[in-house]
Amino acid sequence: MFYTDNKLQYPVRVEKPDPLFARALQQAIGGIEGEIRVAMQYFFQACGARGNPKYRDMLMNTAAEELGHIEMLATAVAMNLEGAPLSLKEEVAADPVGGGVLGGINLKNLLSAGLSAMPVDSDGVPFDMSHIYASGNIAADMSANVTAESTGRILAVRLFNMTNDPGMKDMLSYLIARDTMHQNQWLAALEELGGHKEVFPIPNSFPQDQENQEFSYSYLGFQADGSEPPQGRWTEGQSIDGKGEFSSAPMEPLGQRPDLGRAKPHSGAQNEQL
Amino acid sequence: MFYTDNKLQYPVRVEKPDPLFARALQQAIGGIEGEIRVAMQYFFQACGARGNPKYRDMLMNTAAEELGHIEMLATAVAMNLEGAPLSLKEEVAADPVGGGVLGGINLKNLLSAGLSAMPVDSDGVPFDMSHIYASGNIAADMSANVTAESTGRILAVRLFNMTNDPGMKDMLSYLIARDTMHQNQWLAALEELGGHKEVFPIPNSFPQDQENQEFSYSYLGFQADGSEPPQGRWTEGQSIDGKGEFSSAPMEPLGQRPDLGRAKPHSGAQNEQL
Amino acid sequence: MFYTDNKLQYPVRVEKPDPLFARALQQAIGGIEGEIRVAMQYFFQACGARGNPKYRDMLMNTAAEELGHIEMLATAVAMNLEGAPLSLKEEVAADPVGGGVLGGINLKNLLSAGLSAMPVDSDGVPFDMSHIYASGNIAADMSANVTAESTGRILAVRLFNMTNDPGMKDMLSYLIARDTMHQNQWLAALEELGGHKEVFPIPNSFPQDQENQEFSYSYLGFQADGSEPPQGRWTEGQSIDGKGEFSSAPMEPLGQRPDLGRAKPHSGAQNEQL
Amino acid sequence: MFYTDNKLQYPVRVEKPDPLFARALQQAIGGIEGEIRVAMQYFFQACGARGNPKYRDMLMNTAAEELGHIEMLATAVAMNLEGAPLSLKEEVAADPVGGGVLGGINLKNLLSAGLSAMPVDSDGVPFDMSHIYASGNIAADMSANVTAESTGRILAVRLFNMTNDPGMKDMLSYLIARDTMHQNQWLAALEELGGHKEVFPIPNSFPQDQENQEFSYSYLGFQADGSEPPQGRWTEGQSIDGKGEFSSAPMEPLGQRPDLGRAKPHSGAQNEQL
Amino acid sequence: MFYTDNKLQYPVRVEKPDPLFARALQQAIGGIEGEIRVAMQYFFQACGARGNPKYRDMLMNTAAEELGHIEMLATAVAMNLEGAPLSLKEEVAADPVGGGVLGGINLKNLLSAGLSAMPVDSDGVPFDMSHIYASGNIAADMSANVTAESTGRILAVRLFNMTNDPGMKDMLSYLIARDTMHQNQWLAALEELGGHKEVFPIPNSFPQDQENQEFSYSYLGFQADGSEPPQGRWTEGQSIDGKGEFSSAPMEPLGQRPDLGRAKPHSGAQNEQL
Amino acid sequence: MFYTDNKLQYPVRVEKPDPLFARALQQAIGGIEGEIRVAMQYFFQACGARGNPKYRDMLMNTAAEELGHIEMLATAVAMNLEGAPLSLKEEVAADPVGGGVLGGINLKNLLSAGLSAMPVDSDGVPFDMSHIYASGNIAADMSANVTAESTGRILAVRLFNMTNDPGMKDMLSYLIARDTMHQNQWLAALEELGGHKEVFPIPNSFPQDQENQEFSYSYLGFQADGSEPPQGRWTEGQSIDGKGEFSSAPMEPLGQRPDLGRAKPHSGAQNEQL
Repeated sequence: MFYTDNKLQYPVRVEKPDPLFARALQQAIGGIEGEIRVAMQYFFQACGARGNPKYRDMLMNTAAEELGHIEMLATAVAMNLEGAPLSLKEEVAADPVGGGVLGGINLKNLLSAGLSAMPVDSDGVPFDMSHIYASGNIAADMSANVTAESTGRILAVRLFNMTNDPGMKDMLSYLIARDTMHQNQWLAALEELGGHKEVFPIPNSFPQDQENQEFSYSYLGFQADGSEPPQGRWTEGQSIDGKGEFSSAPMEPLGQRPDLGRAKPHSGAQNEQL
Repeated sequence: MFYTDNKLQYPVRVEKPDPLFARALQQAIGGIEGEIRVAMQYFFQACGARGNPKYRDMLMNTAAEELGHIEMLATAVAMNLEGAPLSLKEEVAADPVGGGVLGGINLKNLLSAGLSAMPVDSDGVPFDMSHIYASGNIAADMSANVTAESTGRILAVRLFNMTNDPGMKDMLSYLIARDTMHQNQWLAALEELGGHKEVFPIPNSFPQDQENQEFSYSYLGFQADGSEPPQGRWTEGQSIDGKGEFSSAPMEPLGQRPDLGRAKPHSGAQNEQL
Repeated sequence: MFYTDNKLQYPVRVEKPDPLFARALQQAIGGIEGEIRVAMQYFFQACGARGNPKYRDMLMNTAAEELGHIEMLATAVAMNLEGAPLSLKEEVAADPVGGGVLGGINLKNLLSAGLSAMPVDSDGVPFDMSHIYASGNIAADMSANVTAESTGRILAVRLFNMTNDPGMKDMLSYLIARDTMHQNQWLAALEELGGHKEVFPIPNSFPQDQENQEFSYSYLGFQADGSEPPQGRWTEGQSIDGKGEFSSAPMEPLGQRPDLGRAKPHSGAQNEQL
Repeated sequence: MFYTDNKLQYPVRVEKPDPLFARALQQAIGGIEGEIRVAMQYFFQACGARGNPKYRDMLMNTAAEELGHIEMLATAVAMNLEGAPLSLKEEVAADPVGGGVLGGINLKNLLSAGLSAMPVDSDGVPFDMSHIYASGNIAADMSANVTAESTGRILAVRLFNMTNDPGMKDMLSYLIARDTMHQNQWLAALEELGGHKEVFPIPNSFPQDQENQEFSYSYLGFQADGSEPPQGRWTEGQSIDGKGEFSSAPMEPLGQRPDLGRAKPHSGAQNEQL
Repeated sequence: MFYTDNKLQYPVRVEKPDPLFARALQQAIGGIEGEIRVAMQYFFQACGARGNPKYRDMLMNTAAEELGHIEMLATAVAMNLEGAPLSLKEEVAADPVGGGVLGGINLKNLLSAGLSAMPVDSDGVPFDMSHIYASGNIAADMSANVTAESTGRILAVRLFNMTNDPGMKDMLSYLIARDTMHQNQWLAALEELGGHKEVFPIPNSFPQDQENQEFSYSYLGFQADGSEPPQGRWTEGQSIDGKGEFSSAPMEPLGQRPDLGRAKPHSGAQNEQL
Repeated sequence: MFYTDNKLQYPVRVEKPDPLFARALQQAIGGIEGEIRVAMQYFFQACGARGNPKYRDMLMNTAAEELGHIEMLATAVAMNLEGAPLSLKEEVAADPVGGGVLGGINLKNLLSAGLSAMPVDSDGVPFDMSHIYASGNIAADMSANVTAESTGRILAVRLFNMTNDPGMKDMLSYLIARDTMHQNQWLAALEELGGHKEVFPIPNSFPQDQENQEFSYSYLGFQADGSEPPQGRWTEGQSIDGKGEFSSAPMEPLGQRPDLGRAKPHSGAQNEQL
């Protein structure tokens, strides 16, 4: 169950509204690395968590935090859109030389939302919930969350670098700090689950003797000239999961030349295929 | 530049075609954890790789491998669809008691593709390339790849558990092994990049003194009753990136009550909002 | 800012798990008339609310309620999936006669989510945030909300009628009641905003003398034989907004035969179009 | 069955082509509040109408009208794109100072459509038919249509305010008038169906004694401090459907702490979850 | 401008309602090879037609025809859904042995549409207007239309083969005949535009001496072993456009090893990439 | 099975990076007429090819070629983004007068991809694999490929006309030449399959005496005034498939007035519909 207090988690100030920056901020709301994604991802992971219930609570607690981040960013978008021109005339009046503001903003923020935030990315593409990764496997979920917070922090850093507004920089310095914590938080959960040697390969519940172990720790080469593939940590030494030794080798086709034969009558093929 | 030899990477055999299993296999082609996703993800990460060029090559080499996996699975889908009924009459003839095959398969495999594979998931939803994560940050990309291979191996294990066909089990035992390697491969790249303490927080190029460090290593509580949030490795000890000490605390709202004020004239609001 | 207490708003009990009903319940989570939609819709309307701030609070308060409904339904889906077969062998063992459970469920709930809920509809299509209607006009938003709760209650009623499980019927009797309230709640807001005569036409801030008033209150006929269109309340009497009198008439084309002329050179057209 | 006469319903004139306004007009074609949406929505509602057949005819008649609106707007987009630069060189030649036209238009209108309209919104996102609401319940459909025409008129007003072109203003003054009528038309149908007290709660065919009536007319509070939620018409007086009395109260969790227990073996979870 | 007469273009009869066939018919409404696609495709091609205006008229005339096909199919879907069970209880009562109808139908037709048609495909995926091909080039549009009617007729044939209902077979025999005509119609337009030698390569307005003619008529080989690629009409004889002679040859990489160099500071990359 | 050599098929040079042109090039990667589309389309057609196996090989061979085209274009996008401003400050510094670069680029290329290519179109919309046409009918597939290469060449021509960069013009002169070949290649396959008279109507395996032949070769008129529809090659002479004679005639409704009757109880309709 969820509650609200109608206050913002952290101050949102905009000294000089910038409609183009509003468009950029939309990426942090509705982009695939944005806040809707993490809020809903932790929420659904929590709802499907099986095993130790503390992970459910820990996930849902952070989901609540992220909901507040969407709220902050949506407020920031609306504040940056204040002063956006509503007409070409207004635009030219405001800036007789350059103009180009209307062309540079996401028009839907104006036409559909009346100068407010939307659940879309910086190019106006709506967020699509297929990006909510909740696998039913706690380790895969934690790994997905490390990824989400890594791309999230990269985005926040890019936004921080893009703006000069002190209010926006302050808000982003908070969000970047939270991404630092969250990256560490999910890594900590993976450590608690045993670290690399216990956790991997995910899922660790599958008996590895049922996989074709000839191919479990070899970096296979697909170079057209049959040469060795690029070398690195992944071609020598113990595997990261501690269960094998890395090697490398060019791959040869082991399978047949695929041939599906003739098409079935009445299947809508051409006569020549029957 | 890419080349092909029209052979399969590994044998694809189906002893007893099973149209429902064909539907399940579609998830491994066009699902968000499927092979189109990894092939295209490594491909685009390679195309955008900056810095040490060996990562580009290593990524593109594995992209070529994954293209071959799509080919194997597409062949497996078509082979499992052999014998699927094309009409209710045919269905009843094949199984006078139960029937229900037509209802259980993905009808588009029949109606749109004529008993062949499609780039869709197990419920017929087309794959959408927004799932290709290529961030321009090598560490975030590696983390995304660990996630992709983790969910990919979980899926392959679930498919392995679902079928009794020896040919399909053999093919999946190969794909599961490759997922084992690929999880280790991306983890190895992260280790080569310095491991947790060098890599995190991602991006490591942002000076942390510009983030609001009061919030960088604290697990914040959003419990309605103001109680401490769930404890774990993430609430005590050194942070995983080695740059802070974990703590935890209930969060209080620090920001204002948001108020956007009146709507702008000519913005399409109601009079009551102006 | 949001908080949680890790408890369910209302009891969720399932006496006899039914994987097919789990699939149906998914519509109430990720369908266009589902709970993600209303939760996010009220949330974004609140974030963009301008004018009297009480509407912001009232919207956000109900957004918090709806988040709890997603949580209830996600729990219900997972509970109904308990006992779903993970393999054809398991399925046949459970039901030697009919079978067909695996074919009838949403396979992604099994293959992607490990028997948990997902933000998708009953056919596995992910929810897409373009369905969040937040127009920047308080009256249009309230109207959208009446619609959302109407389709939501229809869906809940259809689910109620579909199941015999007492636990599920009890949960749905609560959700149906809440939809009753929410329909009334948004209608009440419209009444507070002045009722039909003040609110309509939306937006009421546009001076109607700038619209082409010849066409403002006439039900136009597009019958091929030029006959009068179907009559009803919409063809006679005072208009509902109180600002005109309904009439009806067959429509004639008033515009030109459209002709865009020749294609521009270098625009990629055929020579014949230039 | 449908017919055409290859003429426009209302004159479409553009005095000074404006490629940026063409982009804005795309929202009225392929946006979620645009004309494809209403045309197809009324069409599908008509095709599924059960009960008094006059509603089918009335819906299909207006669907035919809306098809003509798409045609008008598509013509307007193409006319506004006349003169759009096809190259950076052409752009600079036309406007040696500012430029920026190419950057501000929807590039697909140029690259994919050769300076013509597309079924996409103002940011180039294709219209998706999930926005066609046709519920099988005549009252919910009418409510959805009021919403569609409300957001449609808001959009048309915003477009009217954005342009100075007399031809475009004239065309929009017609479309705004039609939206006025259509809002009234669907409200009139709701009145004919009995008005608020007969129509609501939708569906009115569900016996309310089967809903949990304790929660049918109470505005529940989800304020973190347990305070009363925002008051208004929705917290006191007779409910709008005339079947209850509004009240308000803070909500307490009535349900359990959700716990899905251990994961099922062979379900792809980690060992720690089994 | 469009008109309707509320009658069906051709009789729609269903002797024995079949809810599974209703699901299959949905592909002909909202599938990518369905009737919404052709109706909207011809409509948008007409709206953007430049050059000889008769093509606009000819396209719009057939768009009107296709709108009537959607109407027929939507009626057929609703008629086939008559008798679909609304509950598991009802299902078991109707068929105590097999059951499985509810699992086999598209649940949204029941849950969202109340036993009516929707603009979705046979797996419940909504139609997406990006499939409307209108290129601004009359020959490419005609080619796209041949393709659309070819896949459309294949689908109609598959549906014809799937059902035994005489009414449905009769309706489909009409739609198949219309697809025959429409394939021929668009081919006839291409012939009128000059046939293969005038029309191709599309666009014929680009001066071929500006393309790299060394590669204009050679079937290039990408076989890993450097062998000649598969031979056929495409490797010898005059090219179909009459402007070259076919040949074939293995391809060698002509381009550089791509290297984007170091990442830009402040671009969110890792330090190792800078 | 696929291989790579980490070299580009053809040189990619950019003399003067142009971030707006990078945005335009994205259409050739992730647009519906772009290279991902053709690569994946030929790939899936090959995987599902039944009948003469040489078509499988021929398709897969060209799929390999197209993968290399994506690689070239992705490299070109990244090279054109070099020098794109990362902040408003940087933008103003680079161009104190006009500016507007940031507003004109696809922000996701910067915010999500760090100045690299993405699998999206020129407006940032991700490519969606529903555009992969693979019908199971070899002739329909070839026709779809002619269409794909026609729209592809139109796009390449438009891009060629848009830029002045010699490197980009050279790269595009190669891609345009390949599109010339590929249009001819698929046409050649259709000729090898028998040409128009053998191939059409597609599928040629359906016995035409089962279609309603009264309507097989008549261009039907849907003009509101009942007049003859637009005349052309499609209204007279032998049909292109050689199996009929073209004619034309106004169409009359042959079907009934559709009436679905009353709604089913418990189907969620209003009482008035029951």
